Amino acid sequence: MPAINPQRLLDDLRRLRTFGAQGNGVVRLALSPADIESRRWLAKRLTEAGLDARIDGIGTVFGRSRAKGKALLIGSHTDTQPTGGWLDGAMGVIYGLEIARAFRESPDSRDLAVDVASWMDEEGTYAGFIGSRSFCGEPVAGIVARARNREGQPMSEAIRAAGLADQPLARMEAGRYAAYLEPHIEQGGRLEAAGKRIGVVTTIVGIRELRIAFRGQQNHAGTTPMDIRRDAGAALIRFAAALQSEFRALAGPQTVWNIGRVEFTPGSASIVPGHAEMVLQFRDPEAARLDALEAKVATLVESANAAGPVGVSVAPFDDPVAPTVMNAELQTHIARAAEQHAPGAWMRMASAAGHDAQVLAGRLPCGMLFVPSIAGISHDFAEDTSEDDIVLGCQVAATAALSILRDGITKAQGGAA
Amino acid sequence: MPAINPQRLLDDLRRLRTFGAQGNGVVRLALSPADIESRRWLAKRLTEAGLDARIDGIGTVFGRSRAKGKALLIGSHTDTQPTGGWLDGAMGVIYGLEIARAFRESPDSRDLAVDVASWMDEEGTYAGFIGSRSFCGEPVAGIVARARNREGQPMSEAIRAAGLADQPLARMEAGRYAAYLEPHIEQGGRLEAAGKRIGVVTTIVGIRELRIAFRGQQNHAGTTPMDIRRDAGAALIRFAAALQSEFRALAGPQTVWNIGRVEFTPGSASIVPGHAEMVLQFRDPEAARLDALEAKVATLVESANAAGPVGVSVAPFDDPVAPTVMNAELQTHIARAAEQHAPGAWMRMASAAGHDAQVLAGRLPCGMLFVPSIAGISHDFAEDTSEDDIVLGCQVAATAALSILRDGITKAQGGAA
Repeated sequence: MPAINPQRLLDDLRRLRTFGAQGNGVVRLALSPADIESRRWLAKRLTEAGLDARIDGIGTVFGRSRAKGKALLIGSHTDTQPTGGWLDGAMGVIYGLEIARAFRESPDSRDLAVDVASWMDEEGTYAGFIGSRSFCGEPVAGIVARARNREGQPMSEAIRAAGLADQPLARMEAGRYAAYLEPHIEQGGRLEAAGKRIGVVTTIVGIRELRIAFRGQQNHAGTTPMDIRRDAGAALIRFAAALQSEFRALAGPQTVWNIGRVEFTPGSASIVPGHAEMVLQFRDPEAARLDALEAKVATLVESANAAGPVGVSVAPFDDPVAPTVMNAELQTHIARAAEQHAPGAWMRMASAAGHDAQVLAGRLPCGMLFVPSIAGISHDFAEDTSEDDIVLGCQVAATAALSILRDGITKAQGGAA
Repeated sequence: MPAINPQRLLDDLRRLRTFGAQGNGVVRLALSPADIESRRWLAKRLTEAGLDARIDGIGTVFGRSRAKGKALLIGSHTDTQPTGGWLDGAMGVIYGLEIARAFRESPDSRDLAVDVASWMDEEGTYAGFIGSRSFCGEPVAGIVARARNREGQPMSEAIRAAGLADQPLARMEAGRYAAYLEPHIEQGGRLEAAGKRIGVVTTIVGIRELRIAFRGQQNHAGTTPMDIRRDAGAALIRFAAALQSEFRALAGPQTVWNIGRVEFTPGSASIVPGHAEMVLQFRDPEAARLDALEAKVATLVESANAAGPVGVSVAPFDDPVAPTVMNAELQTHIARAAEQHAPGAWMRMASAAGHDAQVLAGRLPCGMLFVPSIAGISHDFAEDTSEDDIVLGCQVAATAALSILRDGITKAQGGAA
């Protein structure tokens, strides 16, 4: 059985952390100088691990095994949020590197193919999931041409500045892969709360975002009597309060929702708001429940319009993301490996955050494995995971990788629910 | 009885409208070139009306009668909101000009003193009510030195540019005045709704503004389960919904309140708001009811804090304005004149907006008279009043002015409630 080298794993993780390090955190936005420097380092490490490594025309780092037969692709992303943690994405990539090395060092896995990828821009500095989307065959030239970061820098310029403009794009080789495996930190606190060390991901939740707008009549807040006002702000508050209680009633065990943006216009203490709007986001592993929640919003909009006196409308704020089911056989492989290395200390769970695996799931059987996030913190400099859990997660992934490649995946189920 | 000249009144109102005219509206911000030009025109018209007219060191236009005995001061303001109407303030000032002329033309009022004022910056371009405050003896040099408009221009610079820096400040002469009378458009729709043409103001409402802040924990809106969130935005919505129903229960016939500003931080669709705040403004003619409403807010804050999990705090957002009671005898004079010229077509009512009269009320018996605003619109280019109502209001004010100066005011009641 391929045994990972804990010290080498942790050393490489710590080395990767130095690119863009700020205190305990990391600022390594996609295509930034720190990101490009870290990708060159990673390509070198993948080469040293015996893989054919390169950085493609969009910045994805790809290490290809020379072994024959079906390959397992292990990956995640090494770009970070504007104030990111050191493990989000990075851990899964270095797991891939370490597992490729461990496979080469063990006689029973030496001839098995493990490819490793660090996808470009999972975090959406320019265009979220652009690396995995390109790898899966989506034509991305138009997206790259239009995308800019918050500072207005065009993505195409950043790619040119990184010296990647002439590199070909890495594309999935037809028939090469048995599966895609993405190890990741949980980013929430469920594992910690349950006292578990490994999460076997069943589904990546679907996401819907709606913009709900309220059109009333702007007016003087002193001289306009309450009974003739058409107060868009008051209508929003009434609507949002009703929505909170309706959503609580409809929620499943893993439903979450958020009203993260609210705006009253013109936003003056002494003017009755003429316009107000809110952005509602909700997530669930089940498409049917997302449908029920969205139908409930429509019903609330309808009754608000019937009751008046403020007009309410609802429209998508962002493209919906369908729930993505992880391949059942892969779940079994990961669960078996988890039970072997950490008996009783693992659980099945949904991923409440998005991952490149939901893109790859359109083309390959996908599996994900989680390790606990201390205090559930991520997207923050304080993000961390215990060293024991980091090491355990990598060994579980390595053991699962071996059985996946030995047994193969018989059914390509999984994907968009 | 002094009879006003409708044509002359309307001509001067229309002439004043030309300074800063934009479509049907007026843009004549305090100390702007249009404002200064209009003040020079007004001073000239007051001089032609036989008054000793001047513009003081802060921009207030003051016309002083040469008649002996107690004087009636009639005034309002000629500066406007950024997108103002043609009558807000301007009408009361031109009423004063026309009444001074009518008084001089009638044998039974020729010897009675009517002074006329257009106060500087009622609308708060630099510092609200600064003209009437200065006239009442408030030391304003420090305020003028610090005040800037939205574009950052210092008020002192604007005064210098207008050539007024060396002019002395107009100050109230001790013992000169019987009363202050401020005619004004209603700015709301109560008169119109009641089918009345004259409003006799009983009180200028008091105003309180509170900033209510919610401090929770910013978090990932996907991976943070609902039951462990400390969502500042959800807490605000819960609080505001409760406040709406509690305020409805406590409200008197003239209570109004407004949540005009709301902010969720950081304001992202996929982040649970860590901080949220709202500005609550409420107005009522009675101080006791304002106290009850403010106490209710304190109770709601207390129970929200007891319930958790988000910390709530409340603090004044702006200085409170006490309700200002209009002098009862002045109300009687205005009511009698209204009944004479428009039998049955007048009503007593509170002013829901602030006026210079609330400043003057600290020193003099004050009275106000309203004419209807078409559709209740003000602070807008569409603001208007029918010509018949404009003319009626001026005649009612003139008739009231005569009886006020003949009978005198015996009790100086009125003022801050």
